[in-house]
Amino acid sequence: MSNIHEECGVFGVYSRDGLDVASLCYYGLYALQHRGQESSGIAVNDDGVIHCIKGAGLVNEIFNKDVLAGMGRGQMAVAHVRYGTVGNDRRLNAQPLVVNHVKGRMALAHNGALTNAGELREQFEMHGSIFHTTSDTEVIPYAITRERLTSSSIEEAISRAMNALKGAYSLIVMSPSKLIAVRDPHGFRPLCIGELENSVIFASESCALDAIGARFVRDVEPGEIVIVDKDGMRSDRTHVGAAQKSTCVFEYIYFARPDSVIDGSSVHVARARAGAFLALEHPVQADVVVGVPDSGLDAALGFARQSGIPYGIGFIKSKYIARTFIEPVQADREKLVRIKLNPVSATVRGKRVVLVDDSIVRGTTSARIVGLLREAGATEVHMRSSAPAFKNPCYFGTDIDSRDKLIACQYTEEEIRTMLGADSLGYLSCDSAKLLADNSHGFCTACFDGNYPETPPTSCGKSKYERRISEAEA
Amino acid sequence: MSNIHEECGVFGVYSRDGLDVASLCYYGLYALQHRGQESSGIAVNDDGVIHCIKGAGLVNEIFNKDVLAGMGRGQMAVAHVRYGTVGNDRRLNAQPLVVNHVKGRMALAHNGALTNAGELREQFEMHGSIFHTTSDTEVIPYAITRERLTSSSIEEAISRAMNALKGAYSLIVMSPSKLIAVRDPHGFRPLCIGELENSVIFASESCALDAIGARFVRDVEPGEIVIVDKDGMRSDRTHVGAAQKSTCVFEYIYFARPDSVIDGSSVHVARARAGAFLALEHPVQADVVVGVPDSGLDAALGFARQSGIPYGIGFIKSKYIARTFIEPVQADREKLVRIKLNPVSATVRGKRVVLVDDSIVRGTTSARIVGLLREAGATEVHMRSSAPAFKNPCYFGTDIDSRDKLIACQYTEEEIRTMLGADSLGYLSCDSAKLLADNSHGFCTACFDGNYPETPPTSCGKSKYERRISEAEA
Amino acid sequence: MSNIHEECGVFGVYSRDGLDVASLCYYGLYALQHRGQESSGIAVNDDGVIHCIKGAGLVNEIFNKDVLAGMGRGQMAVAHVRYGTVGNDRRLNAQPLVVNHVKGRMALAHNGALTNAGELREQFEMHGSIFHTTSDTEVIPYAITRERLTSSSIEEAISRAMNALKGAYSLIVMSPSKLIAVRDPHGFRPLCIGELENSVIFASESCALDAIGARFVRDVEPGEIVIVDKDGMRSDRTHVGAAQKSTCVFEYIYFARPDSVIDGSSVHVARARAGAFLALEHPVQADVVVGVPDSGLDAALGFARQSGIPYGIGFIKSKYIARTFIEPVQADREKLVRIKLNPVSATVRGKRVVLVDDSIVRGTTSARIVGLLREAGATEVHMRSSAPAFKNPCYFGTDIDSRDKLIACQYTEEEIRTMLGADSLGYLSCDSAKLLADNSHGFCTACFDGNYPETPPTSCGKSKYERRISEAEA
Amino acid sequence: MSNIHEECGVFGVYSRDGLDVASLCYYGLYALQHRGQESSGIAVNDDGVIHCIKGAGLVNEIFNKDVLAGMGRGQMAVAHVRYGTVGNDRRLNAQPLVVNHVKGRMALAHNGALTNAGELREQFEMHGSIFHTTSDTEVIPYAITRERLTSSSIEEAISRAMNALKGAYSLIVMSPSKLIAVRDPHGFRPLCIGELENSVIFASESCALDAIGARFVRDVEPGEIVIVDKDGMRSDRTHVGAAQKSTCVFEYIYFARPDSVIDGSSVHVARARAGAFLALEHPVQADVVVGVPDSGLDAALGFARQSGIPYGIGFIKSKYIARTFIEPVQADREKLVRIKLNPVSATVRGKRVVLVDDSIVRGTTSARIVGLLREAGATEVHMRSSAPAFKNPCYFGTDIDSRDKLIACQYTEEEIRTMLGADSLGYLSCDSAKLLADNSHGFCTACFDGNYPETPPTSCGKSKYERRISEAEA
Repeated sequence: MSNIHEECGVFGVYSRDGLDVASLCYYGLYALQHRGQESSGIAVNDDGVIHCIKGAGLVNEIFNKDVLAGMGRGQMAVAHVRYGTVGNDRRLNAQPLVVNHVKGRMALAHNGALTNAGELREQFEMHGSIFHTTSDTEVIPYAITRERLTSSSIEEAISRAMNALKGAYSLIVMSPSKLIAVRDPHGFRPLCIGELENSVIFASESCALDAIGARFVRDVEPGEIVIVDKDGMRSDRTHVGAAQKSTCVFEYIYFARPDSVIDGSSVHVARARAGAFLALEHPVQADVVVGVPDSGLDAALGFARQSGIPYGIGFIKSKYIARTFIEPVQADREKLVRIKLNPVSATVRGKRVVLVDDSIVRGTTSARIVGLLREAGATEVHMRSSAPAFKNPCYFGTDIDSRDKLIACQYTEEEIRTMLGADSLGYLSCDSAKLLADNSHGFCTACFDGNYPETPPTSCGKSKYERRISEAEA
Repeated sequence: MSNIHEECGVFGVYSRDGLDVASLCYYGLYALQHRGQESSGIAVNDDGVIHCIKGAGLVNEIFNKDVLAGMGRGQMAVAHVRYGTVGNDRRLNAQPLVVNHVKGRMALAHNGALTNAGELREQFEMHGSIFHTTSDTEVIPYAITRERLTSSSIEEAISRAMNALKGAYSLIVMSPSKLIAVRDPHGFRPLCIGELENSVIFASESCALDAIGARFVRDVEPGEIVIVDKDGMRSDRTHVGAAQKSTCVFEYIYFARPDSVIDGSSVHVARARAGAFLALEHPVQADVVVGVPDSGLDAALGFARQSGIPYGIGFIKSKYIARTFIEPVQADREKLVRIKLNPVSATVRGKRVVLVDDSIVRGTTSARIVGLLREAGATEVHMRSSAPAFKNPCYFGTDIDSRDKLIACQYTEEEIRTMLGADSLGYLSCDSAKLLADNSHGFCTACFDGNYPETPPTSCGKSKYERRISEAEA
Repeated sequence: MSNIHEECGVFGVYSRDGLDVASLCYYGLYALQHRGQESSGIAVNDDGVIHCIKGAGLVNEIFNKDVLAGMGRGQMAVAHVRYGTVGNDRRLNAQPLVVNHVKGRMALAHNGALTNAGELREQFEMHGSIFHTTSDTEVIPYAITRERLTSSSIEEAISRAMNALKGAYSLIVMSPSKLIAVRDPHGFRPLCIGELENSVIFASESCALDAIGARFVRDVEPGEIVIVDKDGMRSDRTHVGAAQKSTCVFEYIYFARPDSVIDGSSVHVARARAGAFLALEHPVQADVVVGVPDSGLDAALGFARQSGIPYGIGFIKSKYIARTFIEPVQADREKLVRIKLNPVSATVRGKRVVLVDDSIVRGTTSARIVGLLREAGATEVHMRSSAPAFKNPCYFGTDIDSRDKLIACQYTEEEIRTMLGADSLGYLSCDSAKLLADNSHGFCTACFDGNYPETPPTSCGKSKYERRISEAEA
Repeated sequence: MSNIHEECGVFGVYSRDGLDVASLCYYGLYALQHRGQESSGIAVNDDGVIHCIKGAGLVNEIFNKDVLAGMGRGQMAVAHVRYGTVGNDRRLNAQPLVVNHVKGRMALAHNGALTNAGELREQFEMHGSIFHTTSDTEVIPYAITRERLTSSSIEEAISRAMNALKGAYSLIVMSPSKLIAVRDPHGFRPLCIGELENSVIFASESCALDAIGARFVRDVEPGEIVIVDKDGMRSDRTHVGAAQKSTCVFEYIYFARPDSVIDGSSVHVARARAGAFLALEHPVQADVVVGVPDSGLDAALGFARQSGIPYGIGFIKSKYIARTFIEPVQADREKLVRIKLNPVSATVRGKRVVLVDDSIVRGTTSARIVGLLREAGATEVHMRSSAPAFKNPCYFGTDIDSRDKLIACQYTEEEIRTMLGADSLGYLSCDSAKLLADNSHGFCTACFDGNYPETPPTSCGKSKYERRISEAEA
């Protein structure tokens, strides 16, 4: 329902016990599917030979029993789910990326976005390199390969390549004999380590460890390179501390699953805390607090507890709306709005309702939901957003609408309240957002306040090609 | 997650304004999908020519834009979702049933189960009739057709056929020029009437009216026949009051959607009330109340409110588990249990937890969930079931496991508690169950207490054929 | 390419050795696919329990390894391919038909068409029967079941039912314990018996016996009932000789596969003989004889041999045109005509060409092919049709265009020649057609000469229902 | 049925009239499908933005109406069908290859095989390049891009890159504004030019021009670069005459469609001529000559004409065997061999048969077919192969079995005859093979006689990577 998208989830496994690594990836991707529903892929490494299956679709659309069985039994695997744009590119840009270079094959799964991908691409192109995808990820293997020619190991090449890479990258790299997890020095995106028997797992979120019954070990530190091979697990900390920690706060507010724990803080708790802050910042007299399912529920519960207003189940969300759902034609849209989300009249009729959602992006969805509550008999509707107002683009792996579609860039808060048809409106403050997790955490809140931890790319930093494409597609 | 299944949902529309009746059915079925996920079907009536599409699968698997467009524009339509058994029969027994008889074509959608289907089938077979399906529904058109030969209208034939039919039937019948809704005199299954502009809608639940923006008019009364044709809507009340009202109480506890209102009572409220009764009947000292998603949430909230113990979000249920999900092999099942349902540790760690579920059938699922909470750090787990213990078969449209699989038939409550690994166990009492909705309601609670509103079929009442099939399939 | 269609192919197997009867049906249907490409079905009988899978599509679209494996191991099976009309009905009317009656289940596969289906249907409907399909086949089980109530065996019931059935029926009936093949007394459609180890096979054509490595035993005689059960094979000859043998001559000219042998005569030889008769009846001075692939090749070879004019390979037909082929839009049709059929210029350039096709129905295809040859450089094109001119409807299982589309009903031979753009035109004579196979054969040639072996149905013989449907669909 | 495979077909169109270039590619690929059934792809260029759809499957499996419509209207397009190896690589190596380099995007379709791909790859890898596919084609864009950095135009870069490329390449390159056809100086693979209104077409075979109604203009000469852009068509002949013409003779014998004309010679005529040479070189007394459909028919006709022995239709080949056909299990294979190919007994029973096939590779298929004829009653079977015996690997774009599977490498002709169960055996001589087309033609016959027009790659010329892969996959 949101217009803000995480771009990826990554998963990797190195097995010393002959576990079925492809199946572990399959189950791991299921648990990370919320981070990307457009494409899914798994690459299995069997003694240096990499077998990769990927495509546009959910994990259950790309993989079935036969496909998994056909991937064989390897010692390692890396997997990826991706949110991406429309059309042909969905498949073209699916990951893991598998490339061949002078020292062998390499597979890569990347969550994040580079800010200097355009410049790097131009550099490589000036040396005659060619690119197969339109994704910024493709420059990463180039950067690594360039260093690999003069490095004694793949991890050394990665470490040296990191000097060139700017922006957000939680990365799992699979070489013929090693599985390597890398998190950029700012730690924009999460990445954690787990154990299952004698195997090592890397995953974007801990819920993927839970899914396969693995034990959470720790998060990969910002800037850290964790290498697993036949000799065990070791760490290269050269880049640790090289930058201010700046984890994306929207991971806690919306992207991550509430049952995940990131850098030591529970996502569910962070959301409930957001609801509590909201209750403190924007108090209101009301009869019931309801959340928009699913990602508004935790904050609604936090609001209810903090305010003492009863928590209610305000909506039933259809479990059956699939990608193939036929959207009603424009004329019928008003009539048919309750197919996906129907209010529980018994909860809201005759009541003053606090409505908590994870964010307000364009405002159209929120306005519709406010309308639903009024039709169902709510006497007042007080809208609360557990995210601050979106005002700036993200260059670190989140897909945010362009400014002209962000309601907060176009209108004042009072104008927005009127447009939503709400009796009152309140956003979480940016200061409170910075307190959602333990205070040892540094957060990136640039999309709210414009404080970018790294210089965003200038338009002239984009390669000519990228600009031409953008124009052509506009 | 449950082993108890509703068998069907029905939907019908008669349009006087040229509405797209096939699309209305499509959206209506979406809202009724929870009543049956095995097969879906729509039959459109265009000036007496009936075009029917049905098959094994969810509504979004059977219908797409082209299929709907290909059904043309009719004046009436009837639609059906069905829960059914495995294999070939899923498609064979899909409804609506379309038959040709001497006075024209007829389409039928049935929710319920006849108790004398076997005897009727045998009677018809002795007169040379042949049957195409293994469903009891097929005797209904036979019974109607037999009467139709000597009746002046289809509704008269239906009324006379009702004398022969025993058991549960919420029925929508579409003749060349009429749409007719019928509810058996006990009113075992719900059936309601709505209006959209000048069109009349019949649906199993009011949530389907909401889905298409229709206004709820009233429920069809037990024993009532409601006829809609070009002259408007009228009612045949010959059979009204012929039997004690006996609506299935499990419709309120589990089958129906919480946003539906049945016979004047909100399902959500009935469930919350069940939770409250549970708190009264089986109080406990605890720190948090969590419900098993989705159908345990309302009762959990009711328990929390009544008891004063805080309500918590205890589990995250995966939204992506589709029919094609590859179940883990037996060896891995323990490890992989959290893919579908993962506890939120932050909610339960170190706490005494009240766990509310809609029912305990075999006990295996409940035991697994109790285990999950303990692994996630719960110090105590108190299991509460918002349904009484299942002890008897249902002959009125619910598919209940055989007695040897019903844990409550095999073990004492204390034994069950031990098997579940729970610190305490409490079922809703049957007396409280009868109070979930307004007290004007008569409920069938036979699956709990064995008081059947109608004589259940004796085994010798089954046709020889049915017995042979049962044996062959056993 | 033709507008004349066979309506069905049937196949059955009774195994005494535990052969995989479902797989045998699968391979048998492959060999009979040319007799019907619209729907395919197999019903397996495992100790009286019948498992049936059928649907709209080619055998390879309906069946795969898993589907076949899921049908289990039975002792008997019956299978069917069908040509049918557009839309929904393709699936509705798919066979085998499986029905339940008082003495058990019965599966039926039918090739042919009844001439009194409407009257019988009306009779049954007047007794309250209801029909699920729009196919005439459905009255056959009714007729059998009516007699079964007072017969001592299924074969006796079939024999008595045959007194009521008029028209064409090559039938395979599977009861719980017997497999029975029936051919109507005229023997309109073929049906033969084969052996594989200790199993008995029934099939529409002998090529299906070849396909599974079975030995051809003999044809079922017109009017014969052949019963196979655990006691072996026996024959009821009550109806043998009850009518003049009238096998469809178009089976030899077009429908059947050239490698089949029907009633003792090779189809390939019959076609080559048609070409030879054509050369005798319509001689011409020319340089090369080419046939339209595939069904015109045998007759072209016969023409070449008889005339002494060299046989040439005149066209390449694409092997890859599937049902999903995107037909060019009208504007491009002329340009794109050679995708399906491209002339071999080297064969025809600068030559006088004899073009042999199996028939001329509407004339549009023939005109296009004549045009192709001229574009490829042919100096003269002499068209020869190995079938006489179509002038009458068929009531015995062939789907022929309505008279207003049959070019021979609308125009003189000279007009047709001009329309085709041919230098000369010759049809096989009806007298010669009667000589294509051994002279012991009686042929039905009604579609050419109007001599119907049985009274065709009068329009008032159609049931009211059928007429209403026809009007509605017109 | 053969174990020898062509590796590709290419097609391109440059339209000045707004033709639907994607649809033209679709129909063109249909006509070239015999050159590759494993993957299909089309890339459309709309003002420099390239939209590419490709995948594993036949053209009708990858493209449908919606997919084509979604490709939009461009000015140019390039398309490809490919034969490839098993598994995942089918999709990975699908073409057209679309790459991004410093001067923009480029799409490439390649038919052939480079002999120095390994060395080039190693060179590029040593400069840090990475490769995404396992196909040799990927080095071509690298070679072009390397030169492009210092060339004034794409055609100049191609011309310079040709100095580095060794082996076989019929290539269509699409730059943002130009469509360029290239044929290697030996002319190993065919490539021709056509016109449709004001548009220019490039295609592997002329049958693709026929398919879309285009006029054949001329073949691309060996070594020629033909450039089409807004200013018209022009030619760069720098490399023309740089090598001895060496067109693959097996294109005429088996790969190409009989209705195509390559370098001025009809494929059908070349095949008939092969049959005639066979009759001269290996005469025999016999009663009928039959060809193995489809590629043995033309040679059989040539043999029949030359020898005076009547041509017969010896086999019916099933039209319905699709990729999804379930192969019989080993145990049933003998029984079920006639599903795909069934002899026409009437043609061969009691006769001495000359059996003409296009080649004998492993011998297993030929032995089975000889067996079929004997079972069908042939008294003698004389096997004739219209290709000489395969004894050497091909490095120029044909996939030939490894030597240990080539029957002619392992056994003497007499041993082979015995293994086939034939009464006599004759191969076309290599000298005759060189005469199949006009004598101005130079042919590559290396797979028969070992005379390679270019030095084949030494094993040490393969890159380390390729060797490692080969070993791993072995």
